[in-house]
Amino acid sequence: MSVNDIRAYVETLARQAREASRVMARADTGSKDTALRAIAAAIEERRESIQAKNQRDLAAGRQRGLSDALLDRLTLTDARIAAMAEGLRQIAALPDPVGEITDLKFRPSGIQVGRMRVPLGVIGIIYESRPNVTVDAAGLCLKAGNACILRGGSEAIHSNQALAACIRAGLERAGLPETAVQVVETTDRAAVGALLQMDRYVDVIVPRGGKGLIERIVAESRIPVIKHLDGVCHVYIDDRADLDKAVRIAVNAKTQRFGVCNAMETLLVHEAVADRVLPRLAQEFRRAGVELRGCERTCAIVGDCKPATEEDWYAEYLGPVLAVRVVDHLDMAIDHIARYGSAHTDAIVTEDYTRARRFLREVDSSSVMVNASTRFADGFEYGLGAEIGISTDKLHARGPVGLEGLTTQKFVVLGDGQIRT
Amino acid sequence: MSVNDIRAYVETLARQAREASRVMARADTGSKDTALRAIAAAIEERRESIQAKNQRDLAAGRQRGLSDALLDRLTLTDARIAAMAEGLRQIAALPDPVGEITDLKFRPSGIQVGRMRVPLGVIGIIYESRPNVTVDAAGLCLKAGNACILRGGSEAIHSNQALAACIRAGLERAGLPETAVQVVETTDRAAVGALLQMDRYVDVIVPRGGKGLIERIVAESRIPVIKHLDGVCHVYIDDRADLDKAVRIAVNAKTQRFGVCNAMETLLVHEAVADRVLPRLAQEFRRAGVELRGCERTCAIVGDCKPATEEDWYAEYLGPVLAVRVVDHLDMAIDHIARYGSAHTDAIVTEDYTRARRFLREVDSSSVMVNASTRFADGFEYGLGAEIGISTDKLHARGPVGLEGLTTQKFVVLGDGQIRT
Repeated sequence: MSVNDIRAYVETLARQAREASRVMARADTGSKDTALRAIAAAIEERRESIQAKNQRDLAAGRQRGLSDALLDRLTLTDARIAAMAEGLRQIAALPDPVGEITDLKFRPSGIQVGRMRVPLGVIGIIYESRPNVTVDAAGLCLKAGNACILRGGSEAIHSNQALAACIRAGLERAGLPETAVQVVETTDRAAVGALLQMDRYVDVIVPRGGKGLIERIVAESRIPVIKHLDGVCHVYIDDRADLDKAVRIAVNAKTQRFGVCNAMETLLVHEAVADRVLPRLAQEFRRAGVELRGCERTCAIVGDCKPATEEDWYAEYLGPVLAVRVVDHLDMAIDHIARYGSAHTDAIVTEDYTRARRFLREVDSSSVMVNASTRFADGFEYGLGAEIGISTDKLHARGPVGLEGLTTQKFVVLGDGQIRT
Repeated sequence: MSVNDIRAYVETLARQAREASRVMARADTGSKDTALRAIAAAIEERRESIQAKNQRDLAAGRQRGLSDALLDRLTLTDARIAAMAEGLRQIAALPDPVGEITDLKFRPSGIQVGRMRVPLGVIGIIYESRPNVTVDAAGLCLKAGNACILRGGSEAIHSNQALAACIRAGLERAGLPETAVQVVETTDRAAVGALLQMDRYVDVIVPRGGKGLIERIVAESRIPVIKHLDGVCHVYIDDRADLDKAVRIAVNAKTQRFGVCNAMETLLVHEAVADRVLPRLAQEFRRAGVELRGCERTCAIVGDCKPATEEDWYAEYLGPVLAVRVVDHLDMAIDHIARYGSAHTDAIVTEDYTRARRFLREVDSSSVMVNASTRFADGFEYGLGAEIGISTDKLHARGPVGLEGLTTQKFVVLGDGQIRT
């Protein structure tokens, strides 16, 4: 297709999505849940043919020399297909956020004013290799009453088309428009550029992928973006910390999983307890294969410790490396987090009431924790049910984004003939 | 100043604002209210010197040939100065939104998860001639715990500088940083461009002014924008309407004030009542000097009616002109609003329960009303206390934006040593 053809194609998808979004916005909860369960059933029924399509993607990927890690993420095993179906059923079981009216109050003029939760409209989702995003994102958008346009990675195109067919079958079974979930069928990169210009039809873009992808999208998009950038998460061990809790939390925050955005990347330790807690931690981290990069004071206490550079304080390692800094007091910890952090998730370990309260208030991150592992920053752990991602933006949705983040609120006014005087 | 100098100057303002925002975020309610009242007192005390500066702007404006309407908006009369001070005292009397924790719940893991309302951080406000925006915007930002950078119209520069001095005096009296509210002191247009690039320091831009200004800012900004575009508001008179209410509401929505965004621009009338209600309305509108532009069926009923063109359905007249269309039924009214409206404020007049409910749910506008005038779409009328504007965006703030719209929420997690397994 020429660039003009791609533009016209994407515009057709976008216009159809806009039309479908009006039907989805008024769809009742029962129809939406029926669709979600029907999609789950279709995925299970067609497991083998989905896997056959997935094999085509894998073969092409091997030929193109994709890394083993990428090929693994691309593979639709039996367990992953079962998990997709189960995820849809869990979304069906969540309460419907749409239509909820809150704060309905009488005003002196006699009108009653409240807010109604409503879908955002049309959501464009741009993601990389994992085909399960196709199903998870479609499910969340559908339940929140939105239409969506899904643009997955080119390396997963056949898998995504097979899953899209299941989604269409489920929507049809529920009497909902098939255009409520559309997968972009061309792998041409120009389709992304065209989608980002469709501000007339598309209300929000949710990119999922590496920092490079997200920065490109933000730079190019005429449509608001709900995005996730860095996760440079901190744990600060205060001198009034329970040191057993401190060790447990710091070890869990770093080592429970390395490649995730809510893993600790920098540990801050109050100087008064550094002598006692850092040797214990160093032993645990050594056992877990974590390399330590410390400030001078840290390296003086801990043996096998590389000197940290300025870049280490900014680093999101996403791997078995940890920056460690000894600080003079709480204020220095808060300043460090404000300067080097990414406003994702930060935790204090302390038994001190006033310091806990100050940390909660003064650290400006999407999740702020007292005596808990940063690894809890997650839609399921927070009780949101499922998440489309974790937002590091301040506007609209901040932190884990679940169904509510895919909706907005409008004002409703109920009157009895009132006029303004 | 050269463009480079201006960039450096604006960057200094932005960096100072970012530093001040951290102090403001933890400022207690008492200090913020003290500052608001002290600014109000300073404005009253310095009324004459403010007016002297204002005269310089007015003289310059006359020389530059500004229109009478613009000169009027620029003038700081005694009454307007008193209103600014009163507005600040009203903001001081509003509840502080910052720090409120909601939905704090235990999760199965043992952690307690809730949300805390927090300031946005640094807000850039770009506006045109009216100097009172300087004070209103500063007051709202301050109460919500933000720092702000104010860039007013060049024609009001001396007035704005005089008001900025009062604001600094009030902040100082309350022990808050003077850099929490900064007025851009150069009238060079390059300062706006520079401000819109300061995404490292500025969290959100709020433009106030005509559509041209806002579109330019959105196109140029690297920072999220809370914006107000068109107000193409509709009133739909259903065949089950109480026609007395219908006439009262339609007349008020159009004629109570012409130049405002929540005035009705298109009237939709069900065909079954058009014969009865349109002649009454035409008489009222004629008396108020409103020109009618109708569809064929409207013009067949109403004598002095110009035929409406396609452009009329899209028009925001902001003046004594009204587009009128007879529709077959509720669905046609909802379709018309979806196609031609601007998603600002739309009202139905009906006594029918199901139609009222459908209109509330299916019309996707920032305010949707039953049996009330569109003119109520306003922060004061809704009980928000004061507003920084009306947002026609869907993300973050929708409709009138008060203190809450200048804040966001973060997750707080309270634990007792919990780790993720």
